[in-house]
Amino acid sequence: MAGNSFGKLFKLTTFGESHGAAIGGVIDGCPAGIELDFEAIQNELNRRKPGQSKIVTQRKEPDTVEFYSGIFEGVTTGTPIGFVIHNTNQKSKDYSHIKDVYRPSHADYTYDKKYGVRDYRGGGRSSARETASRVVAGAIAKQFISTIDINAFTSSVGDIFIDKPYQDLDFDLIESNAIRCPDEATAAKMISKIEAIKKQGDTIGGTITCVIKNVPVGLGEPVFDKLHAELGKAMLSINAVKGFEYGSGFCGAKMTGSDHNDLFNSDGTTQTNLSGGIQGGISNGMDIYFRVAFKPVATVIQKQEALNSQGELVEMQGKGRHDPCVVPRAVPIVEAMAAMVIADQILLRRQESRDW
Amino acid sequence: MAGNSFGKLFKLTTFGESHGAAIGGVIDGCPAGIELDFEAIQNELNRRKPGQSKIVTQRKEPDTVEFYSGIFEGVTTGTPIGFVIHNTNQKSKDYSHIKDVYRPSHADYTYDKKYGVRDYRGGGRSSARETASRVVAGAIAKQFISTIDINAFTSSVGDIFIDKPYQDLDFDLIESNAIRCPDEATAAKMISKIEAIKKQGDTIGGTITCVIKNVPVGLGEPVFDKLHAELGKAMLSINAVKGFEYGSGFCGAKMTGSDHNDLFNSDGTTQTNLSGGIQGGISNGMDIYFRVAFKPVATVIQKQEALNSQGELVEMQGKGRHDPCVVPRAVPIVEAMAAMVIADQILLRRQESRDW
Amino acid sequence: MAGNSFGKLFKLTTFGESHGAAIGGVIDGCPAGIELDFEAIQNELNRRKPGQSKIVTQRKEPDTVEFYSGIFEGVTTGTPIGFVIHNTNQKSKDYSHIKDVYRPSHADYTYDKKYGVRDYRGGGRSSARETASRVVAGAIAKQFISTIDINAFTSSVGDIFIDKPYQDLDFDLIESNAIRCPDEATAAKMISKIEAIKKQGDTIGGTITCVIKNVPVGLGEPVFDKLHAELGKAMLSINAVKGFEYGSGFCGAKMTGSDHNDLFNSDGTTQTNLSGGIQGGISNGMDIYFRVAFKPVATVIQKQEALNSQGELVEMQGKGRHDPCVVPRAVPIVEAMAAMVIADQILLRRQESRDW
Amino acid sequence: MAGNSFGKLFKLTTFGESHGAAIGGVIDGCPAGIELDFEAIQNELNRRKPGQSKIVTQRKEPDTVEFYSGIFEGVTTGTPIGFVIHNTNQKSKDYSHIKDVYRPSHADYTYDKKYGVRDYRGGGRSSARETASRVVAGAIAKQFISTIDINAFTSSVGDIFIDKPYQDLDFDLIESNAIRCPDEATAAKMISKIEAIKKQGDTIGGTITCVIKNVPVGLGEPVFDKLHAELGKAMLSINAVKGFEYGSGFCGAKMTGSDHNDLFNSDGTTQTNLSGGIQGGISNGMDIYFRVAFKPVATVIQKQEALNSQGELVEMQGKGRHDPCVVPRAVPIVEAMAAMVIADQILLRRQESRDW
Repeated sequence: MAGNSFGKLFKLTTFGESHGAAIGGVIDGCPAGIELDFEAIQNELNRRKPGQSKIVTQRKEPDTVEFYSGIFEGVTTGTPIGFVIHNTNQKSKDYSHIKDVYRPSHADYTYDKKYGVRDYRGGGRSSARETASRVVAGAIAKQFISTIDINAFTSSVGDIFIDKPYQDLDFDLIESNAIRCPDEATAAKMISKIEAIKKQGDTIGGTITCVIKNVPVGLGEPVFDKLHAELGKAMLSINAVKGFEYGSGFCGAKMTGSDHNDLFNSDGTTQTNLSGGIQGGISNGMDIYFRVAFKPVATVIQKQEALNSQGELVEMQGKGRHDPCVVPRAVPIVEAMAAMVIADQILLRRQESRDW
Repeated sequence: MAGNSFGKLFKLTTFGESHGAAIGGVIDGCPAGIELDFEAIQNELNRRKPGQSKIVTQRKEPDTVEFYSGIFEGVTTGTPIGFVIHNTNQKSKDYSHIKDVYRPSHADYTYDKKYGVRDYRGGGRSSARETASRVVAGAIAKQFISTIDINAFTSSVGDIFIDKPYQDLDFDLIESNAIRCPDEATAAKMISKIEAIKKQGDTIGGTITCVIKNVPVGLGEPVFDKLHAELGKAMLSINAVKGFEYGSGFCGAKMTGSDHNDLFNSDGTTQTNLSGGIQGGISNGMDIYFRVAFKPVATVIQKQEALNSQGELVEMQGKGRHDPCVVPRAVPIVEAMAAMVIADQILLRRQESRDW
Repeated sequence: MAGNSFGKLFKLTTFGESHGAAIGGVIDGCPAGIELDFEAIQNELNRRKPGQSKIVTQRKEPDTVEFYSGIFEGVTTGTPIGFVIHNTNQKSKDYSHIKDVYRPSHADYTYDKKYGVRDYRGGGRSSARETASRVVAGAIAKQFISTIDINAFTSSVGDIFIDKPYQDLDFDLIESNAIRCPDEATAAKMISKIEAIKKQGDTIGGTITCVIKNVPVGLGEPVFDKLHAELGKAMLSINAVKGFEYGSGFCGAKMTGSDHNDLFNSDGTTQTNLSGGIQGGISNGMDIYFRVAFKPVATVIQKQEALNSQGELVEMQGKGRHDPCVVPRAVPIVEAMAAMVIADQILLRRQESRDW
Repeated sequence: MAGNSFGKLFKLTTFGESHGAAIGGVIDGCPAGIELDFEAIQNELNRRKPGQSKIVTQRKEPDTVEFYSGIFEGVTTGTPIGFVIHNTNQKSKDYSHIKDVYRPSHADYTYDKKYGVRDYRGGGRSSARETASRVVAGAIAKQFISTIDINAFTSSVGDIFIDKPYQDLDFDLIESNAIRCPDEATAAKMISKIEAIKKQGDTIGGTITCVIKNVPVGLGEPVFDKLHAELGKAMLSINAVKGFEYGSGFCGAKMTGSDHNDLFNSDGTTQTNLSGGIQGGISNGMDIYFRVAFKPVATVIQKQEALNSQGELVEMQGKGRHDPCVVPRAVPIVEAMAAMVIADQILLRRQESRDW
């Protein structure tokens, strides 16, 4: 299968299934000379790790990344950075009951039809576990584009929404609670909701909002590779994502042009920012902000009917270890993908320069 | 600038600005042996053409495409198909008033900052006119994947929505009205709304829904090039798009897992289709359906403040010829992009085959 | 078919068959702000044009290129440059005798087997005519990288070789004779040889040497995209090319290390240049020089046996208009390919910069 | 840096420097369902390994590859195959004497100028050691395209050449001697030559010929991605390669058309094969054969002048462990690259099929 690489000039290629020996990747195109903060990289991985709190999955792998190349005395050399994260907490036996069964709303059926081969252990390549590699690459990308601020947070769980504009939120509070919601009142409601859902053995969806500040002007290409199109593809590639909108988003579709305009200030900034920092597919220097929709995770502890490979419907009850809500764990993944897109765009933009 | 190509194996590269001599493209990778229906291609171009009715732009170019290569005696040869659409109805003088002015919510400012050169005539490369090339390529893609049905239609204008599920709509009615809405009652309300908006010299947004039927199983890649991520990027690359969702979309983010599951029938189809025909990023044979949000077009006949290149705010009134609502004209573009994504995926999927 | 694009950041996509309506291409990624010299572009096309002298093909098309986009008031805008060269001098009837026949050493057989469709008119997509598009793009690339000097010349025809090192040649003499050999004595022998060959109705091969001066240090990538590998692929993609060598080439394979070393001067230049300006796949600032081998053109006026589509051997005599030696016409094509590779590398190298 | 990936559909991305912790790669696009022979893979690695005999380098790493993903119960799953080869025999201290010195004819100077960072340990990313990853991927590619035979052998060392056509050689003898020359008389002379060279502390170049049999018709693309252009780029990307020729090669440049033609037999095969199995850039079913030229390895035990980073010329004597002739070790690398090109082309060719 292809589709395992992301980016053109800052490029990540990943490998690994959730229950194989290890997952990892190669980052190709990271510029030389970046002095890496390894603690920060590990911190991003920890943010993604399950078992941090009662509301997320109880798989307590200590994700530690090992770098094989591309770094010399703590500084990137410009050569490919190969890295590996060993799977230590696999519990293959949790999945033996699904060996010949296609779980509803999983990728089991499609995989078998496409490849004729299905590694039944966990979600295989479709598992959320491969996103750990994205988080490592995103952490390095963040250090490359260090003056650009990327902050993502949970903006809704089920029908519980933050009801303030993001400008009124304090991003320092994102990590202060398990749900990664910087509005404390809303966070409390979200947590209650999830605990109730969990007791029922059910799952629930939500949305993540991401804000990117201090973006230079001129990132993105005007036709097929518009900056928001690249961000959209990046976010839609995260497991469980069902939608992407930026700036005014789907609300903008209900507005008139006279209401929707972002009028200029004399210094080139705009008074409003319904554009979401991108016009004609190119960044204009204002904040870029977008929202990503996550469906509820498909494995439910409740009984459901599944299909086996002989075409028979069988009753099954989900087992394994599952998140009632994936959204908090996806927050660092959204940031990682955003960082990689921006890093790639920074490198692409350099070719516009007329001097060499 | 790069970003002017779309697709990996069925690849379109476009060129041309709205007020240059011609626009066109090269389709590389179209398989040999397809007997082309040129009337159908012209028909798709006509659908996109402005001046069809009172509610769309009054630029009456007769878009005619000329093919230079890749077709011999009406059959594709497998070689690149080069084509050109001459711009006959340009009216450059309409844009002279903006020569040194950045219009709000346009790409003028970002272009100048990025390239140091700005072709002020119309929207240049960011103009919707380059989408005519997409429609030509999409029309050819449709003929390649002829057993797959792709239908797009206007599902909302402003706050007026179709209130039926798409399964209850008759797609044969899409072309029966100027708004391309297959629900006649809703269509009438939409048209009234747009005419009122137009009288005010304003513009309004809307959404398009697209349904793809008879999709083979196995299209898409599970990690970064998930099928819905490719569709999302394709749709987000269309001018004025602010959001993309597929299947249950942003509504799915509010649901629980027990409600959201698509249970299996014994033949591999599913009882519901909240997945939108894609699981784990790969098509499962059920209908693929998605929705695209369009913001209102930015040029308004009303007066607004713009910024000129000396950093002064100046009052300007939009001129030129403008759509009060771009959504009906975007319907064939959405279909074209969908066709190109599916064609590309069909070609990519062939490598899974173990025989050669 | 794919394989119709060349380059990563300075990218050319071509279309067109020798006997279709037109040939052309799209140049994507040419930076903005280059003031084009259109006479120089036309001059490169003229250099390639047949019918310049008695020793080359008698097809007197006046190749004129028409630009459709990407240029505004004579300056590149950074948007794709779409261009077309109309075929005016086709003489399709010259090829009717080969309609059902595969000519030996032509691409007829392989095309039919691969595509199931064969445009029998001339060489179709494999014809040397598509190289006119390469020359246009190469001419623009040359203007982008204007401080770098690229000179190619005929270094051998049959067994007649220039017997001086290139440093002793005056490149201003390259265009002074029809064979494009800057050594006048050798040029005279080459021309005699070709005229004799032509009288016999036969063809003959030769080699082209190319020298690139003022190359900046640091072009090329060390692993798979070594600069000489990119140059080699570029040259091998030209019709009739059978070999590529750079620096000491195949002779270097016979040498010892102590003889082969390029010792340093204190300023970083080297005393000798057997490396050919490239070490570890990266340019070191010294002249890059390489040699390209061309086989004799396959169509011979003499009678030969060909195979028809029923599997019968039939006698045929070549007709049409043919070069006894393609080498002089290939000189501008070699330069064009070299210019495109260097332009692409210049753009790729910019990402190494640590500031933005 | 980019340029660390090879292939379009069967794609290898490598990482690792010779003196880093490990080298490795990711193979993306290997089809599912191939039952791997791990011994055969290890065997290819062993062929490449130094220290096999007296005539090659005395670095006795036991290269063992570890697979992290993409293989389940010994069968490829179609997911990316991540693998690592740990560096166990590094001897960094061998290179301390060159810490601030640019060795002549090495990549030291170009690396430092390009990246501003130079990992001085060994050849870093330009070292031949990264080719071990290529051999692993090539071994897997060979198993995918198992009916195609690829055999490479040493055809010359210095001025000692095999004087028979390859059709008269027995490929089973290639592994019977340390020089990998299937002509025993010539092999003996080559070995004597190399031992003499080694005693002098010098190095010597040579050439490798490669023959590919049972190639299906139709591989390769006619314009920029001609099959021989892809092979040429692949071979030129191997360290120390100075030239590539296929079929009649540089000799063909001396021939006339009447001599150079490959006349047809009635079954579509040809009587001669000066084309080298490729016409118009596409395989025609006949043997593909080509020759690759290797310069002598640059590190010589003799004293030479090098340049240090202060711009001073200093005398240095090479140390470390070096091959007097790299050609025998490059034989499996040439085969690996050929296998990867053919595998990629097999996958690319599938899109030509009109059924799906």
